[in-house]
Amino acid sequence: MSLLFKQLRIHQIFGANTDVGKTILTTALVRASAALKNEVFYLKPISTGPMEDADDEHIKRHSSAFKDKVHTECLYRFHVPVSPHLAAQLAAGDESQKIVSDNTFINTVSSYVRRCASRTNGPAHMYVETAGGVHSPTLSGTTQLECYRPLFLPTILIGDSRLGGISATISAYESLLLRGYIVDQILLFRDEYYRNTEFLTPYFAERGIGVTALDAPPSKTDDAVENFESTESYYKNLDMTPVVQNLDARHEQRIAELDSMPRRSLDAFWWPFVQHGLVKGESDVTVIDSASSDFFSVYKNSAIQQNANANMGSSLESQLDGSASWWTQAFGHAHPSLTLAAARASGRYGHVMFPQATHAPALELAERLLNGPGNGWASRVFFSDDGSTGMEIALKMALRAFSVRHNLQNSERKKLGVLGLKGSYHGDTIGAMDACAEEGVYTCEWHNAKGYWLDPPTVSIREGRWVITLPPALAASAGVFDSPAVGGGDSESWVYDVARRLNSPLADVYRDYLSRTLDGLETASGVPRLAALVLEPLVMGAGGMIFVDPLFQRILVDIVRERDTNPSSSSQDDIDTSKSWRGLPVIFDEVFVGLYRLGMQSTVPLLGTAPDISVNAKILTGGLVPLAATLASDSIFRAFYSTEKAEALLHGHSYTAHAVGCEVANQTMRMLERETKSEPWLAAKARWETPGKSSSAWSFWDPQFLQTLSRMDVVDEVMALGTVLAIKVKDADGGYVSQSAKIMLQSLGDSDNASSELPQFSVHFRTLGNVAYFMTSLNTSPETVRILEEKIWKALHNKRADL
Amino acid sequence: MSLLFKQLRIHQIFGANTDVGKTILTTALVRASAALKNEVFYLKPISTGPMEDADDEHIKRHSSAFKDKVHTECLYRFHVPVSPHLAAQLAAGDESQKIVSDNTFINTVSSYVRRCASRTNGPAHMYVETAGGVHSPTLSGTTQLECYRPLFLPTILIGDSRLGGISATISAYESLLLRGYIVDQILLFRDEYYRNTEFLTPYFAERGIGVTALDAPPSKTDDAVENFESTESYYKNLDMTPVVQNLDARHEQRIAELDSMPRRSLDAFWWPFVQHGLVKGESDVTVIDSASSDFFSVYKNSAIQQNANANMGSSLESQLDGSASWWTQAFGHAHPSLTLAAARASGRYGHVMFPQATHAPALELAERLLNGPGNGWASRVFFSDDGSTGMEIALKMALRAFSVRHNLQNSERKKLGVLGLKGSYHGDTIGAMDACAEEGVYTCEWHNAKGYWLDPPTVSIREGRWVITLPPALAASAGVFDSPAVGGGDSESWVYDVARRLNSPLADVYRDYLSRTLDGLETASGVPRLAALVLEPLVMGAGGMIFVDPLFQRILVDIVRERDTNPSSSSQDDIDTSKSWRGLPVIFDEVFVGLYRLGMQSTVPLLGTAPDISVNAKILTGGLVPLAATLASDSIFRAFYSTEKAEALLHGHSYTAHAVGCEVANQTMRMLERETKSEPWLAAKARWETPGKSSSAWSFWDPQFLQTLSRMDVVDEVMALGTVLAIKVKDADGGYVSQSAKIMLQSLGDSDNASSELPQFSVHFRTLGNVAYFMTSLNTSPETVRILEEKIWKALHNKRADL
Repeated sequence: MSLLFKQLRIHQIFGANTDVGKTILTTALVRASAALKNEVFYLKPISTGPMEDADDEHIKRHSSAFKDKVHTECLYRFHVPVSPHLAAQLAAGDESQKIVSDNTFINTVSSYVRRCASRTNGPAHMYVETAGGVHSPTLSGTTQLECYRPLFLPTILIGDSRLGGISATISAYESLLLRGYIVDQILLFRDEYYRNTEFLTPYFAERGIGVTALDAPPSKTDDAVENFESTESYYKNLDMTPVVQNLDARHEQRIAELDSMPRRSLDAFWWPFVQHGLVKGESDVTVIDSASSDFFSVYKNSAIQQNANANMGSSLESQLDGSASWWTQAFGHAHPSLTLAAARASGRYGHVMFPQATHAPALELAERLLNGPGNGWASRVFFSDDGSTGMEIALKMALRAFSVRHNLQNSERKKLGVLGLKGSYHGDTIGAMDACAEEGVYTCEWHNAKGYWLDPPTVSIREGRWVITLPPALAASAGVFDSPAVGGGDSESWVYDVARRLNSPLADVYRDYLSRTLDGLETASGVPRLAALVLEPLVMGAGGMIFVDPLFQRILVDIVRERDTNPSSSSQDDIDTSKSWRGLPVIFDEVFVGLYRLGMQSTVPLLGTAPDISVNAKILTGGLVPLAATLASDSIFRAFYSTEKAEALLHGHSYTAHAVGCEVANQTMRMLERETKSEPWLAAKARWETPGKSSSAWSFWDPQFLQTLSRMDVVDEVMALGTVLAIKVKDADGGYVSQSAKIMLQSLGDSDNASSELPQFSVHFRTLGNVAYFMTSLNTSPETVRILEEKIWKALHNKRADL
Repeated sequence: MSLLFKQLRIHQIFGANTDVGKTILTTALVRASAALKNEVFYLKPISTGPMEDADDEHIKRHSSAFKDKVHTECLYRFHVPVSPHLAAQLAAGDESQKIVSDNTFINTVSSYVRRCASRTNGPAHMYVETAGGVHSPTLSGTTQLECYRPLFLPTILIGDSRLGGISATISAYESLLLRGYIVDQILLFRDEYYRNTEFLTPYFAERGIGVTALDAPPSKTDDAVENFESTESYYKNLDMTPVVQNLDARHEQRIAELDSMPRRSLDAFWWPFVQHGLVKGESDVTVIDSASSDFFSVYKNSAIQQNANANMGSSLESQLDGSASWWTQAFGHAHPSLTLAAARASGRYGHVMFPQATHAPALELAERLLNGPGNGWASRVFFSDDGSTGMEIALKMALRAFSVRHNLQNSERKKLGVLGLKGSYHGDTIGAMDACAEEGVYTCEWHNAKGYWLDPPTVSIREGRWVITLPPALAASAGVFDSPAVGGGDSESWVYDVARRLNSPLADVYRDYLSRTLDGLETASGVPRLAALVLEPLVMGAGGMIFVDPLFQRILVDIVRERDTNPSSSSQDDIDTSKSWRGLPVIFDEVFVGLYRLGMQSTVPLLGTAPDISVNAKILTGGLVPLAATLASDSIFRAFYSTEKAEALLHGHSYTAHAVGCEVANQTMRMLERETKSEPWLAAKARWETPGKSSSAWSFWDPQFLQTLSRMDVVDEVMALGTVLAIKVKDADGGYVSQSAKIMLQSLGDSDNASSELPQFSVHFRTLGNVAYFMTSLNTSPETVRILEEKIWKALHNKRADL
């Protein structure tokens, strides 16, 4: 959506207040641009008030000397002299649906700008004059600086030269800054009495922004001709040329900076998970100039851009963030509510140290987590920085609880292991890695897998049917099943109604298999003593978007707990054993699956069983800053509780419970509450639910689309839950290093994909071997999801045709 | 500094602009408060303009009916009707030193408020009316909302009811929010034409703030008596009572919330490094209501507060953050420049995923780091979340580089270890722990120390002399020294002029000892193959603030490199071997010591040798949000460079290189550049340097103070470098779990410490066993440091008297 043209330098004009001289100074800019031989476009997107007072009329009148160079346009005109939102309401009367939406408004502005850009050959300038102050409401009532934000135009702020104008100018600037705008210049009238310029010039110089004061226009008289002439002569004497040259320089600087970024990035970064030897060159670097809602604004310089026309000449391309930026985004990028939450906490606390201290954002968040994902079982929150550190803490908790209960000696403690599933991933710090099987490529010198990992049955949609695929050991154990794939359910409740399925024959197969396997592990050589059960409920993410049969996980938890051999010990006898962990402490790694990523706050209600420890991160801060929370039950906490300092959980990070992260997380949780009760959510739920069948699982993706996809001959299977869609393409090799899914869908990432009849955005997506996955935010519009589905279908369809 | 009194409810009145009716509405508030039988204090800290127009005069005039209840005061009065900063300049004329500083101004306001609080018995209200808009400059030129920030008073914002007033009101609110203010109420005049209230009411309701519109006052006439009467009758008809009741309710809510926080925190948190069994109860919880510069504002409810008078009745106590919040703070808490940097990045990007992508904040930061701490040796930056993750990455880099160079098999790779020093600490994730000796309490079930750790010589000031203490093995090895403590230098350059010391006899002792020890390790049983040298240069922080002899570390690096046996191998032959790592990859953990914590950007110039890998965190973001950077040389990077995905450094965190963290870090690095050239820094340096001797080490602490301290009979030794001061008290036991240093200095943390003649703040400090340490920000005022020194001396002096 963002616009940037090499040949057409565009600035939007915002006022620090109404009546500060926006139109006068913009007229002077238009004239100066034209006098420097540039074609000039002046756009007043919305005008209120009588025609004769209209800003675009003033510009026309006073740029007649440059008539052939200057083009003016107004897109929405209302004749009542009130704020645009009131004018729009008055014009719409009872038919409020007639009020132009932000989306339509921005598309109209964008189209006009693109038309201008395509019309000009030489260097050209455009000035987009907004109405009133920075936060004046637009037609829909959204305040201006938020409505215009998707276009991300560089800004000229017209300062206020009157009494109080210092404050008005700085506050308006700060509101612009909170939306990330680039402010290139501040202009205001000279005023010898209040001398605001004197104060503002050094103030903004420190912030890298030039302030230019210009003479105020002559006072108006009743004589129109006299007015015109005195105004013309005022404009003639006003020297705006240096300002225009500065704006040109800023524009060129910005483009030069963007042009240089791929090379410099290739030289300075060591990217995570990236084999630099496979990065082909500058064109392989995604230059993100800004981001907004679900879209990156990606810079493509003309040398790199394969198809400039596809992008209608703008060097910035809209790219759907199709993996929610590594599964972190809840409400899209740069959501103002999250920015304001971050600002509020930073302004009040900065960061304050946490041991034995408390502050409101941390306390509110802890209570929200205990009443939310921890509801009914958790009693404590331990904060850290990311999913991996959160899991290290969870492991330290579980291993200690086990060691204390069983009175283990130090040497025995060092040899403990965990029980998990093959394909698990819990992060990249070595402790978190050690809780995963050492298979595939997620390894390193010090990785030493400690435990045993079961091969789980998985869930998918194949050829339009829900099926459960049993791994060889389990299929053999089942006996009754002649094929590893069982099922043929016609809806998700066939899988996700776990309570109903507890009495199914398959449940007995699982129970039998698990009991026998766990019996065997107790005496098996090479298997350490198991001290914790560690699961990613429902979906194993980084391991390959593996959807595990939830029934299997539920029964695994049940069986581990039933095998409890030592329900209490002397050091634990002060606690209520009915509430204590049994068998093994159970850890749910909900870093990826939690907080509505899969459509539910926590997987606990669906599975019908709670863990003793769980971890949340990623979505926790709505996708803004790192923060993780490890939740624990009271019986886990008690294992560390004594009067010996050395028995405490001696783990901490400098920024533990940092106020900015906690406050952003609180805001996220407030918004999650609201969002998950909103119309698109309810519609998506309704679309998915099979009448007469109950299930707490559902997805954003169209069931019909999933059916179609699962029947394509290049597709092995698909699966969707909540915001997640996974597509496994047919590929003999598979594995983490396979590029098959990437190759199969690569046209989604091409700019020229944007030239189709579908709306103009490319798609940034991620793959894990032969699985391509897509993820929306929690508030992605149903329309965007529909377009994405169509793009995915087309890409696969065309690829099939290629084969 | 912050003020909160149970009986005296205080609000500051800010205007969304000048001339929005602040005084009129404040008058109405004063009258309504008085009518509800409260004593009312009205404070106009600064008034400009003629006496007859003065706001306090207006209040007096129109509250005469409540004369016995209402007290008005103006602290600074100027008769020219211009902005306070201009009025102050005009009044000061050429003597600009006469302009009141922010500090003096705030102290004056604070004293007045405290006097009022002590004067009142029943419930009382106070209104502090500011001048102009939120960002109007005060006397010094600082804008108002920043100048008043240390008092952290809850705020009433007077909105703007005119055309453009929606924008002005929202922007003013956002500027307040950026400083963390609590906004309790928005008031504005009713205007039937522009209807701003209609828009603002739901807008602010969503943000939890009530908007109340009130009738505008009658227009003025030339007749003073008529004016007075119409205004009086206007006030009589204005119903401000519900607003006053709402403000009372907010005040009570805030206090109730603060009162409840200790209990709720004890119930919900699992604090890092805290033995909950040793937390005695609510009084052991530090309730941080806000923070500003070097101070926490800590809530003490009357039940907890031992000495209410000490705090002059305010429930909020200023507490110096004496450990820079776990060594993170660079410029103190809630620095507006960092908040704005965070806001700017959040508004522009939110967070965007990083693999193969680039954005301006990350790129700028990478380049700053390569040109800063990485200057001359580093070529790549790998981002992560905290010191511990940064070190895990560093270890993965070093171990792989070593394995590749030596063509190790997988089984050999798993058995590698590191060479380090006893007392090291690199973080709490298990990989970082495994690079440290398993001694003391920093351990856990899966901790498996992998390597060998040498006992290093340490540096301290004892009895006024600089000494180096040799550990037993080294002392024995030295032979020539009859005591483990050597030296008697009279200044820091005796220790820190490493280049000069390379030719000293002690250097030869170190060389000899290290060569023999490393020879021995090659064949020693139980010692793994060493694959990296891992050091915290100069100071081992969490291990006990151990100041290591830098000469020993320098020679250790040299010797490790001289022992290079395999300078190149087939997989590395494309690189310039003269620039390649030699012997072992060397990691400098500069998480604590880097970025001016010890007075220098990096320890590399002082040691005269560069690492192959280094880690920065903590100060990196100025102490606001988590972010870490691992820097690596090209030869390390090349070990992972191939066309095989599986050979890449497969490590990453969801928020890798998050824009908010990077932009805050960029702002921090800009400010570090400026700050370290500023007057207090240069003065501190000059004070420390011995004439005629060169050294790049120095500290903020007064050398004379250190001398005195080191001679006290309760003190074993002291040490200071940069912003750090460590005091080891005499204690037979010592060790991490010892409480001796805490007990010795505990009076610093008491509120009643504030009742002495020294300025009123208590000190929050941290201890590690028998070591108490103190740390300032990089811009703590020399005066605050001096007071802290005096408080420390007194605490120790009094304790000695107790013994």
